[in-house]
Amino acid sequence: MGSSKITGIAASSGVAIAKAFILQNPDFKIETRHIEDASREVDRLATAVEQSKTELEAIKVRAATELGEDKAAIFAAHLLVLADPEFVGAVKSKVTDEKVNAEAALEAISNQFITIFESMDNEYMKERAADVRDVTKRIMSHLLGISFASPATISEEVVIIADDLTPSDTAQLNKKYVQGFVTNMGGRTSHSAIMSRSLEIPAVVGTQHITESVQNGTMIIVDGLDGDVIIDPTPEERSMYEQKQKKYEEQKAEWHKLASQRTVTANDAHVELGANIGNPEDLDGVLANGAEAIGLYRTEFLYMGRDQMPTEDEQFEAYKKVLEAMGDKPVVIRTLDIGGDKELPYLEMPEELNPFLGFRAIRLCLENQDIFRIQLRALLRASVYGNLKIMFPMVATLDELREAKAILAEEKDKLQKAAIDVSETIEVGMMVEIPSTAVLADRFAKEVDFFSIGTNDLIQYTLAADRMNERVAYLYQPYHPAILRLVNMVIQAAHKEGKWVGMCGEMAGDPIAIPLLLGLGLDEFSMSASSILPARSQIKGLTTTETKAIAEHALYLDTANDVEAYVKEQLK
Amino acid sequence: MGSSKITGIAASSGVAIAKAFILQNPDFKIETRHIEDASREVDRLATAVEQSKTELEAIKVRAATELGEDKAAIFAAHLLVLADPEFVGAVKSKVTDEKVNAEAALEAISNQFITIFESMDNEYMKERAADVRDVTKRIMSHLLGISFASPATISEEVVIIADDLTPSDTAQLNKKYVQGFVTNMGGRTSHSAIMSRSLEIPAVVGTQHITESVQNGTMIIVDGLDGDVIIDPTPEERSMYEQKQKKYEEQKAEWHKLASQRTVTANDAHVELGANIGNPEDLDGVLANGAEAIGLYRTEFLYMGRDQMPTEDEQFEAYKKVLEAMGDKPVVIRTLDIGGDKELPYLEMPEELNPFLGFRAIRLCLENQDIFRIQLRALLRASVYGNLKIMFPMVATLDELREAKAILAEEKDKLQKAAIDVSETIEVGMMVEIPSTAVLADRFAKEVDFFSIGTNDLIQYTLAADRMNERVAYLYQPYHPAILRLVNMVIQAAHKEGKWVGMCGEMAGDPIAIPLLLGLGLDEFSMSASSILPARSQIKGLTTTETKAIAEHALYLDTANDVEAYVKEQLK
Repeated sequence: MGSSKITGIAASSGVAIAKAFILQNPDFKIETRHIEDASREVDRLATAVEQSKTELEAIKVRAATELGEDKAAIFAAHLLVLADPEFVGAVKSKVTDEKVNAEAALEAISNQFITIFESMDNEYMKERAADVRDVTKRIMSHLLGISFASPATISEEVVIIADDLTPSDTAQLNKKYVQGFVTNMGGRTSHSAIMSRSLEIPAVVGTQHITESVQNGTMIIVDGLDGDVIIDPTPEERSMYEQKQKKYEEQKAEWHKLASQRTVTANDAHVELGANIGNPEDLDGVLANGAEAIGLYRTEFLYMGRDQMPTEDEQFEAYKKVLEAMGDKPVVIRTLDIGGDKELPYLEMPEELNPFLGFRAIRLCLENQDIFRIQLRALLRASVYGNLKIMFPMVATLDELREAKAILAEEKDKLQKAAIDVSETIEVGMMVEIPSTAVLADRFAKEVDFFSIGTNDLIQYTLAADRMNERVAYLYQPYHPAILRLVNMVIQAAHKEGKWVGMCGEMAGDPIAIPLLLGLGLDEFSMSASSILPARSQIKGLTTTETKAIAEHALYLDTANDVEAYVKEQLK
Repeated sequence: MGSSKITGIAASSGVAIAKAFILQNPDFKIETRHIEDASREVDRLATAVEQSKTELEAIKVRAATELGEDKAAIFAAHLLVLADPEFVGAVKSKVTDEKVNAEAALEAISNQFITIFESMDNEYMKERAADVRDVTKRIMSHLLGISFASPATISEEVVIIADDLTPSDTAQLNKKYVQGFVTNMGGRTSHSAIMSRSLEIPAVVGTQHITESVQNGTMIIVDGLDGDVIIDPTPEERSMYEQKQKKYEEQKAEWHKLASQRTVTANDAHVELGANIGNPEDLDGVLANGAEAIGLYRTEFLYMGRDQMPTEDEQFEAYKKVLEAMGDKPVVIRTLDIGGDKELPYLEMPEELNPFLGFRAIRLCLENQDIFRIQLRALLRASVYGNLKIMFPMVATLDELREAKAILAEEKDKLQKAAIDVSETIEVGMMVEIPSTAVLADRFAKEVDFFSIGTNDLIQYTLAADRMNERVAYLYQPYHPAILRLVNMVIQAAHKEGKWVGMCGEMAGDPIAIPLLLGLGLDEFSMSASSILPARSQIKGLTTTETKAIAEHALYLDTANDVEAYVKEQLK
């Protein structure tokens, strides 16, 4: 029998060779039975709940040690579901009232909860539905005495094969054992893909039917460089990919030599390579990959996955930790970008028909000034511990920018009057992610210290296509000449006023985009920490003259495909 | 007792003076009662349903005669609900199975249907919920013997006072009696506001609390010019507003003298004023107001409010009718712009998190080519009856434009091979409503005959704000300098290639925007028919030199407010 090959979307670079571990939801067959002895059935249920609790607590401790506190949080959420009297209590009542077996009662109540949570059209509540699903699966497995594969139980080197990976799954992945993963679903910006890059695990996503093509234990090669998956490789293939793996590892080692170097072009022009982070926990990767800055610290994660607002002091500690760790390197902290698809359980937000065009980020902060001012105070207080730059998200008009700056000035003034130290050199900037600000960048440039172009949103608004919507995902086109022109406008306008421009979307780390952005004069590139060294290596081989010529030509091409083909040709 | 004044948003020009007619939902108090004789209760229900049916049929006939077939359609929908065995049948079953009174059963079943329809997050289904609500109200009133105010029963001159007007309400308005209306809710682009302009009835919307301030029969003055409502006016006020009304009527008469004239500036430069239409029925208003073109014929109404696709012949007849009526005047027909908030019951469309950034218009047509090709054939066949221009909506990339043009060319070729006449002078253009096309207008201009700027969408994408979302409605800023700059880019790019540019959003008829657009060189302005004559009158007083200076200055202002204040100052 020969090997076979499936091609998907290359989601995270590298080559992995290991046995398949199929992560699949167990197929519980639940029968509804009439039971006579309800109290015995309630006991069975209680035992299963207790076993689940013990198990979850153990996983939680292990996750906290091996994967970090933030990843362990999901198990705390599962334990909360187990402890919720409305949930387990309802199952129990159903058993006693209707004299049905515990499995049937659990399934019915669980479905009710899931339906309610999912119908809420609210990201937080949908996550609660996922929690209920996970917890139900666990209790059910104990009731039925069926064990199911959990990523947390993996203790040998494997490649994970799954339909898709949920946040709960990825939270349990242990990098020590998980060599790579392959999924049926997803694209380059899906949750699984982003996680694979963040964990630096080779991954191929969107293969459509990997789960049907592989058995547990089958040898698998994941080629995250080209998006190929080899099933049951021949000895020749295996040796070929081991070569490729070795070469990639060598290249990685080469890259790592660049970790302590500045980023310069072949003609010795300096640009700054920064990292995007969501948590102080991400700092290890940032430092290991030699980031020259944090180009984007997304503070919303401080606010999410909890049931009340973080206090000023909690925020202060988080910001201080990041600023101190980075020393005199710049740290761009973005104020709260909540709303849209990110909601907070403790903040009442209206249902919106088009949340991406809705009440979010600075719009919400200017109306909920209490929340905004607490964050600004925490930032100002932390400013003396490093090189802080404050950035406002989703600005669309100069009125909004002016109002946000005025509030910041007020809070600074109040702190100073209270004799609290605040840095005098904080730069204040804004995201350019709404087309109006790119088009009017010359006016905005007079009133900020810097811009950071958020390409993820800028592309979706400029092309009017929700990048999460698969039907229009083909319109998420970073190389669309209109995007390049907007980026060009922003950089020209800023430089005319002596201001700098960064970029913090996925595009900043993309090898096709890098020559274009360099050519347009971008000053700072902020990306996943794992992309920094490859980018530094690529930039080392480019000159400002050649990239300028490439970029200027690309601005007058017709389509994204034309641009991509042209850049590839030029880079040959 | 003196008069009082409430200020809201001026939604439709003119002054109305008449007695208040409060349109309020009746407050039915429904008690659930156990009934012994279910068959008697079923009879009561059947009688009430029969009475409702007779009533609705009468209203439908009257609406068709007095208001037109399209407005009568809503009552056909109500009759369908009455005839739906799933609905009335469910009420009946509830009465017999649960032995409850008909009112309680009707309320319960109705709420079930409404909840289901409303939860569907689909405009078509939500309209069905409104239908169920209306029909339930009617049956209930017969069951309880309570009569309720229906706009269709008005037979004297009144000003309607309401919380808001539903499409069902406005469909029943008879212009002969309804002199004006005032609502608590709504803004300038709400359904009520758009209807008031289309019916040319003075209206003030968004007054917050008019319904609490007025009684049935109270004398009311509606000043739709300034957005004021005078309650119980003094004789002096009444006489003052009668003057204002007279002056406005005189001005309208003056305007009407312009109906047969071309639109020219004070220095005799010609621009074209066109009308936006949705149905062949709108032609009367178009002709009466002296439109020089139809700048936008929205074909989606042909597809909506029915349960199957319109055939090629049905479409052909509709297009032919409009083309013939307009003679040699241009008629820009836009191909199907469905999706987003407009859905078709007979076309399966996925639920989308952000429908405005979703699978709609040309995106959907290029994937559902059978639908698209039928429409294109109908258009091509109709082309010999007038001056047809075909326009594609929601184009974001040159690839899409090229594909749409190629399909059109194929269909033309097929028709010609079948010896069917097709005009050889059809212009083919596209909407510019997605920012990418404005930014890249120089490339698009090479491949179209004309552009029409769709400001409603262009503004919402450029500022990333859903204009239907009240929380961010303040960001719907037509005068934002970024919008003016995009409009400028489009016009410059088109003129360089010798192509013409129209505009078919609300902005084209706005007295503040008109001088700016004229100054930027816009060739065609397409608006509600009722705005054409005031616009023609305004343009007559402007010169190209002065408006050019105004527009060029405005391009470099900071904010929408700055632009508005500047234009007002210049027009003084």
